[in-house]
Amino acid sequence: MVENSTNYQRQTMSKQLWIYDTTLRDGAQREGLSLSLEDKLQIARKLDQLGIPFIEGGWPGANPKDVQLFWRLKEEPLSQAEIVAFCSTRRPHTKAAEDPSLKPILSAGTIWITTFGKSWDLHVTESLKTSLEENLAMIQDTIEFFRSQGRRVIYDAEHWFDGYKNNPEYALETLKAAVAGGAEWLVLCDTNGGTLPHEVTAIAKTVVTALANWGETSVQVGIHTHNDSGTAVANALAAVMEGATMIQGTINGYGERCGNADLCTLIPNLQLKLGYSCIANEQLSKLSESSRFISEVVNLAPDDHAPFVGLSAFAHKGGIHVSAVERNPLTYEHIAPEEVGNKRRIVISDQSGLSNVLAKARNYGINLERDNPTSRQLLQQLKELENQGYQFEAAEASFELLMRSALGTRKQWFEIRGFQVHCDKSSMATCNSLATVKVIVSDRELLEVAEGNGPVSALDAALRKALQNFYPEIAEFQLRDYKVRILDGKAGTSAKTRVLVESSNGHQRWTTVGVSTNILDASYQAVVEGLEYGLMLQQQTPSNSVILAESSL
Amino acid sequence: MVENSTNYQRQTMSKQLWIYDTTLRDGAQREGLSLSLEDKLQIARKLDQLGIPFIEGGWPGANPKDVQLFWRLKEEPLSQAEIVAFCSTRRPHTKAAEDPSLKPILSAGTIWITTFGKSWDLHVTESLKTSLEENLAMIQDTIEFFRSQGRRVIYDAEHWFDGYKNNPEYALETLKAAVAGGAEWLVLCDTNGGTLPHEVTAIAKTVVTALANWGETSVQVGIHTHNDSGTAVANALAAVMEGATMIQGTINGYGERCGNADLCTLIPNLQLKLGYSCIANEQLSKLSESSRFISEVVNLAPDDHAPFVGLSAFAHKGGIHVSAVERNPLTYEHIAPEEVGNKRRIVISDQSGLSNVLAKARNYGINLERDNPTSRQLLQQLKELENQGYQFEAAEASFELLMRSALGTRKQWFEIRGFQVHCDKSSMATCNSLATVKVIVSDRELLEVAEGNGPVSALDAALRKALQNFYPEIAEFQLRDYKVRILDGKAGTSAKTRVLVESSNGHQRWTTVGVSTNILDASYQAVVEGLEYGLMLQQQTPSNSVILAESSL
Repeated sequence: MVENSTNYQRQTMSKQLWIYDTTLRDGAQREGLSLSLEDKLQIARKLDQLGIPFIEGGWPGANPKDVQLFWRLKEEPLSQAEIVAFCSTRRPHTKAAEDPSLKPILSAGTIWITTFGKSWDLHVTESLKTSLEENLAMIQDTIEFFRSQGRRVIYDAEHWFDGYKNNPEYALETLKAAVAGGAEWLVLCDTNGGTLPHEVTAIAKTVVTALANWGETSVQVGIHTHNDSGTAVANALAAVMEGATMIQGTINGYGERCGNADLCTLIPNLQLKLGYSCIANEQLSKLSESSRFISEVVNLAPDDHAPFVGLSAFAHKGGIHVSAVERNPLTYEHIAPEEVGNKRRIVISDQSGLSNVLAKARNYGINLERDNPTSRQLLQQLKELENQGYQFEAAEASFELLMRSALGTRKQWFEIRGFQVHCDKSSMATCNSLATVKVIVSDRELLEVAEGNGPVSALDAALRKALQNFYPEIAEFQLRDYKVRILDGKAGTSAKTRVLVESSNGHQRWTTVGVSTNILDASYQAVVEGLEYGLMLQQQTPSNSVILAESSL
Repeated sequence: MVENSTNYQRQTMSKQLWIYDTTLRDGAQREGLSLSLEDKLQIARKLDQLGIPFIEGGWPGANPKDVQLFWRLKEEPLSQAEIVAFCSTRRPHTKAAEDPSLKPILSAGTIWITTFGKSWDLHVTESLKTSLEENLAMIQDTIEFFRSQGRRVIYDAEHWFDGYKNNPEYALETLKAAVAGGAEWLVLCDTNGGTLPHEVTAIAKTVVTALANWGETSVQVGIHTHNDSGTAVANALAAVMEGATMIQGTINGYGERCGNADLCTLIPNLQLKLGYSCIANEQLSKLSESSRFISEVVNLAPDDHAPFVGLSAFAHKGGIHVSAVERNPLTYEHIAPEEVGNKRRIVISDQSGLSNVLAKARNYGINLERDNPTSRQLLQQLKELENQGYQFEAAEASFELLMRSALGTRKQWFEIRGFQVHCDKSSMATCNSLATVKVIVSDRELLEVAEGNGPVSALDAALRKALQNFYPEIAEFQLRDYKVRILDGKAGTSAKTRVLVESSNGHQRWTTVGVSTNILDASYQAVVEGLEYGLMLQQQTPSNSVILAESSL
């Protein structure tokens, strides 16, 4: 992994920019967000597909999860992106080569390492409790050490803007130390997020000028901003316009306090409006889907009003506005929504949607005509279900079953006549759960019962036990993921619940959805459709099933 | 109301800015937001208290609600703010004095009227379907008419930036027409939200220069931005730095598509960072409370990550970080949270050290010493619970109960001996849920049963029914929010579940947490702690309860 990184040669003369994602590290600092190792891997692979060149994986050694991520990515490397290890400079008054905290960084085996150091004299004396000279030595020595080990180094200048405002001479000294150590990028970090765009412009200009004065034409400038002043995106743009070539941020702007600069806003601004090149246009058209996928992985509701990628970003309300936008989208849209994989939505109009439904049907090899009554009927049914809280974006298997129902091509594998679930908790003991189901298959009725460590797993176990009598292949099906979202939290425990279940047969994965005020009922719907879809897949020939390719593991 | 508006005399030579709120009109365009007349009145009064000088009430005549708002505010006027009527210029080829659509505007009886006109030639020909000359006449004639009726006029130049970019000469002609008509402010509107800050800077400069060239020293410039590029705040700041003196925006950035410029971000930036004067400092310290109040009125969950006013805006994770911020807040905070009426929060997470726990305890008026064995014990317990999946970041009430347990100051209000939950679904019917609980209070044992539309609501109902016999105040408690997070989705339906429950007693809100592989058990834990905490709050004197102030609605 260390050998080759030709993709990211410097191209200072072109309009190429390098996006550096820190969702896995800085993004995970967001209050209420916590990522499992599997979550991190899923996000890293998504970012890789999106064409993000640098992905910060975490701080190896700071916690066991981060070390494991690097190991897993050594076993199954990303296709294009560089995974980057993050760490601080060495401790005061040691040698970098002897600092035990730097060993796990090298063990992570990345080509690129980002190390951060103090730019603000106040932090050197107050937080590090060391001298200003020692801080300079720490920066240079740490970078030199990594370079001596064949690594390439990005230097994050923590608290850069506050440091510069308080003591510009010293702040510039810290950058000089990083350059002397061999850093290839100097990233100006607005750690507290308090800087405004005009300040970024002025200070970034100074850095670019200083680098020129030092004769350092090969060292590049980067920018890392936070949104505490509501200007993280504008601050990053300001730095780019002064010559910064690396932009650090996170998907959906996740991050500590008010978040980091949102890459889902920055990338389209840079690429569509300012003419820089960040990712392929083909990848840009996956931006909305990637944003929503990652919000599902971290289990945070997507921001419908997010620029470019939000569900409402291109929503138009009724009247003149709508007819104007239909005649000439330029009148009310700043970009074409398709460029970022989003959609124009006409609010309060069932005109919208039909073409989506038809396009979607074509995905499954089903050719529905616009004037076929089934098309309108399917659209109507879809709208009713979406009103009830169903969501098919993330549950394509349920969508396909719905389409097959409308077309009369949905086979009835089994019929479930009802279920009962019982939970019993005596003081302090664990909670016993038991479920019974009654199933009809080929005119035979079967009553089964099973236990589980919760009501949903008991229900799932009872269903499988009953159906396996008829369909032994069900033994191969696994539940891979189970997600619950409360749709109207304000209704308290009476709120509607949406359950998404991801199932697998070892070769393919598919997701189904259920909605009910009763979480057990919602889970039951999703689990039952998951089993049904799995049976359908087993019977299908590969040729007529696009979903096979789409959802291959 | 027409007689006196001395508060808003022009003071071009000072650093005074005029904030113009359009939450009631442009904010209400947000998808999913709809305001009753009472909502509008509540918001208007809150904005008035906050010191916002101009409040756009709506478009009289466009809908009955807007007319009523103006009537109600004539009966009970605002104390300081000017309520402003909004309308378009007259129709093509009529006279303003004869245009029936302008009559209700005058009837609204405001001193100030904002009228918007077309700046973009494309919109004149495509939307208005009239000539460029007629559009100029419409602008001038409409404003002249209002002036002749003794009103003062703000001119909103719709699509200003796109118009200017496409045809700068014509765009400037439209402003000249507005000036000729007698407008006192020319507001540059980025209607589609696609403009970036450097463009605003350049174009606003042109307008200021043009006004000087025309010899119009008394006409001022305003700015109205949308967030489609994620730069609404930065765009407004850019215009102010070029000389704009009126800033239009909405509370919490509500608005169509991606929203308008957020006044809760703009006002602190302008006042605390750029030294402009917008509202009194005393009023600024009510900003967070006003933001949350208005989000309650419009029934949208507050954005915890909003700059300045969000619950997480001054939240600190991580050990070193926390001890540094306690020694010197400047190190990690861009402003003092009190200036905007927000609070520093120490977040308890798996990165927390002892200093976080101690700092948090101090929040609750509990002075724990670093070398007190209880402190270490509490930290240990906290880490174990977090390993199990508990999360106290968002469940401060559960954290306080845990601390009180460790300190031996947690009162036992009741003891629950166990529960049973039963759900029964027969084919196609809805799912019946029934729960029983056994509770001991003051040595009396009580067995209760209740139904619900799901197992959790049945359990909640049974618990309340049992406990209300002893604590009638429980009748006042409401479940305000219920959140479910599957901790390890990969374990399928056997995964651990974390439940967060937000409760309220009508004055205060608090959040509790439960974790279990059984979703009913997790919900039960959170609901029970929610009831316990509510009982504890009822008994507390205000003096020893920081949480009372923190969590006031």
